[in-house]
Amino acid sequence: MNVEIINTGSELMLGRVLNTHQQWLCRRLADLGHVVTRQVAIADSGPAIQQAVREALTRADLIITTGGLGPTSDDLTRELIAELLGKKLLKSPEVQAHIENFFARRKRPRPEKTDTETFVPEGAEFFLNATGTAPGLAMKITDGSWKFGDEVGISPSTIYHLPSPPVKWLVMLPGPPRELRPMFDHQVVPLLKREFADEMYVCHTLRTTGLGESRVQELVAAGLQPLVMRGLGVGYCARPGAVDVRLTGGGNRAAALVREGAAIVQKILGENIFGFDDDEIEAVVVERLRAQRKTLATAESCTGGLMASRVTDVPGASEIFLGGVVSYANSAKEKFLVVKSSTLERFGTVSEPVAREMALGAREKFGSDFAIAVTGIAGPAGGSAEKPVGTVFIALASAEGVAVKKFLNVWDRATFKQVTATQALEWLRQVLSA
Amino acid sequence: MNVEIINTGSELMLGRVLNTHQQWLCRRLADLGHVVTRQVAIADSGPAIQQAVREALTRADLIITTGGLGPTSDDLTRELIAELLGKKLLKSPEVQAHIENFFARRKRPRPEKTDTETFVPEGAEFFLNATGTAPGLAMKITDGSWKFGDEVGISPSTIYHLPSPPVKWLVMLPGPPRELRPMFDHQVVPLLKREFADEMYVCHTLRTTGLGESRVQELVAAGLQPLVMRGLGVGYCARPGAVDVRLTGGGNRAAALVREGAAIVQKILGENIFGFDDDEIEAVVVERLRAQRKTLATAESCTGGLMASRVTDVPGASEIFLGGVVSYANSAKEKFLVVKSSTLERFGTVSEPVAREMALGAREKFGSDFAIAVTGIAGPAGGSAEKPVGTVFIALASAEGVAVKKFLNVWDRATFKQVTATQALEWLRQVLSA
Repeated sequence: MNVEIINTGSELMLGRVLNTHQQWLCRRLADLGHVVTRQVAIADSGPAIQQAVREALTRADLIITTGGLGPTSDDLTRELIAELLGKKLLKSPEVQAHIENFFARRKRPRPEKTDTETFVPEGAEFFLNATGTAPGLAMKITDGSWKFGDEVGISPSTIYHLPSPPVKWLVMLPGPPRELRPMFDHQVVPLLKREFADEMYVCHTLRTTGLGESRVQELVAAGLQPLVMRGLGVGYCARPGAVDVRLTGGGNRAAALVREGAAIVQKILGENIFGFDDDEIEAVVVERLRAQRKTLATAESCTGGLMASRVTDVPGASEIFLGGVVSYANSAKEKFLVVKSSTLERFGTVSEPVAREMALGAREKFGSDFAIAVTGIAGPAGGSAEKPVGTVFIALASAEGVAVKKFLNVWDRATFKQVTATQALEWLRQVLSA
Repeated sequence: MNVEIINTGSELMLGRVLNTHQQWLCRRLADLGHVVTRQVAIADSGPAIQQAVREALTRADLIITTGGLGPTSDDLTRELIAELLGKKLLKSPEVQAHIENFFARRKRPRPEKTDTETFVPEGAEFFLNATGTAPGLAMKITDGSWKFGDEVGISPSTIYHLPSPPVKWLVMLPGPPRELRPMFDHQVVPLLKREFADEMYVCHTLRTTGLGESRVQELVAAGLQPLVMRGLGVGYCARPGAVDVRLTGGGNRAAALVREGAAIVQKILGENIFGFDDDEIEAVVVERLRAQRKTLATAESCTGGLMASRVTDVPGASEIFLGGVVSYANSAKEKFLVVKSSTLERFGTVSEPVAREMALGAREKFGSDFAIAVTGIAGPAGGSAEKPVGTVFIALASAEGVAVKKFLNVWDRATFKQVTATQALEWLRQVLSA
């Protein structure tokens, strides 16, 4: 089954908003066993929308458009698609009653502009909008039910010859995420289940850290090869400080195949795997600390508060996170973390002994079970031959003492901070998993 | 000029990652005067990539692809496009030396798999990757330089007849944002300026904070209307805690028109404007502090280190930023910031007196000229009828004393942190500008 998404909106083409529909719909559809084969974004102008829909009709079994169903002058999708397919727009009393009710419940007069939202292409199904006014629309399309491009002003070079298609569905959804998402889940999904036989589809992601993308593949590719021959899909995705291994499969044996693949990756990459699917390292760390009833404090120089910020991004972090010190100036290291000035002088700010004292000081002052400390050179300035930009010392203090690791993270400043925070949190995750 | 973007990556189609390239590239290109006409996302499979590029070639003057240039087996873009256009891949000693150097600087052996990255389609220009290994590629394409679909296994229904094209450019960029973005800015933009006659196009953004998007529009729209009649483009874009006003114009008189518009916006929104174009509040604050030879410390509860992290994102922040305390637990507020336990008991953690004492304590302990303190309820839990989720107190201490402001920031947790940090930094910016 071939699924295509068409996102309309001039603000998308100007790069003023992020297209979150793409990810959301692709993910929902993949989880239903329908991997989207193509997504297109275009401005909300007549020729662009009609051309995109026309092209999609030559390929797809299911087409989902987003946006352009509202009441303002740049909302053209309903009209343009009805025109393209040669369908009249008919006023729906049911939709009108729903919209009247929407405004009545809010004790506001219904704006006249919402009239356009009450029109439905002949023969179409509609989805009443539970969180807004414009209904979603679904059209069953059979061969011969649309006009050719020259009839609607598209130049001949973009006319396509349609293969004889089986039945296709074209679904139009409103643009606002708070309207689109519940409508998809509660109204489109039942239609898909009714019209398209469910294919079994499984996707499982193993999230690793500490190895580069090419190294990850070198390590697992040979082991997975026999499963790939049997239909397993394998993908790799690099992020700052992490590499995802994604295993996918379709059909009856998919779950078993993906499970078998995951076991192989687990065996080979073992302790480099910090989580699965949507897990973030900081969420895993917070969860482990909570389960073990342990607390954490941080002492940050070069990461400048990012480590604390990532930990506190996790809801419920306050149960385990006591706090942190961003000791950018040396005087702050001495005052808040009891780092000795003699240590700073003798070894320099970016050194193993300073990292060690920062971690011990943070653990003592906060009274936490664990403390992580980071000192390094983020750049772009501040490096030397002996300690180039990217040099980092990470220290981890616990009831069992303190240990220090050295890293060389040669990245731009923002990536350096992310990678270093990931290394520090990952170390703690490993200790908590041991 | 017709510009199309093709994003490749199975993880996009599975909805596992958000396509941030679309927004970023569309925005950059629009600012250069080239509004993107179509963006397509497809899986990194052979037929899908070749079909999408082939279609784009029938329409676009400039095609930019993202992803698929890396070293792993699902990185196919370079090979597929070379095949589609009938070009050999030739090993580039210059690219190889660059990649060798990348790993040498990190004291890591070069993985053999990176060999594929050293190959360049014959006749193509390449962009050495300043922040990674895979080079970007740019191919000048003239009529007749590619094969037809059936030669590469695409079914006849998807073969397009090409109009006689003028010269086109196909640019391939690597997928990781930290590689793509500097490469576009420093290497692709010069190529665009060289190859595509610059139409006079001016884009100027005034960045505001403290007002909602519709309020900003209400305030400036009438004043700008006469200039809109003369061809000025006006756009608004809401971000967490900020609203951008974008003024654009084309043609000979564009610069004057945009300048006139900016003066009007400046006059109306005055002190709500914190910067222009790509300015971030934290960069403006660091710059002002540096110019005035003043220092800063932070005390954060609900923002959890994000404020410090944003300040330390700015290169050179160490000249003015002494450090911060993330005082998540009350004990940390007492120990590090000398907040009185009686104040915490009497007024509660999220209160004006606690914010005040945090700011004063941070200023004293760090010995800084300015200190900002934040205490609030990020949610999703922790709210009450009197102090609902989103309640925030921000305090600013300086040689002149301390002041406190109260805000109600009702957002999801991550947006709450960003909006609150923006409010705090913006307040400091205003004080530094006074």
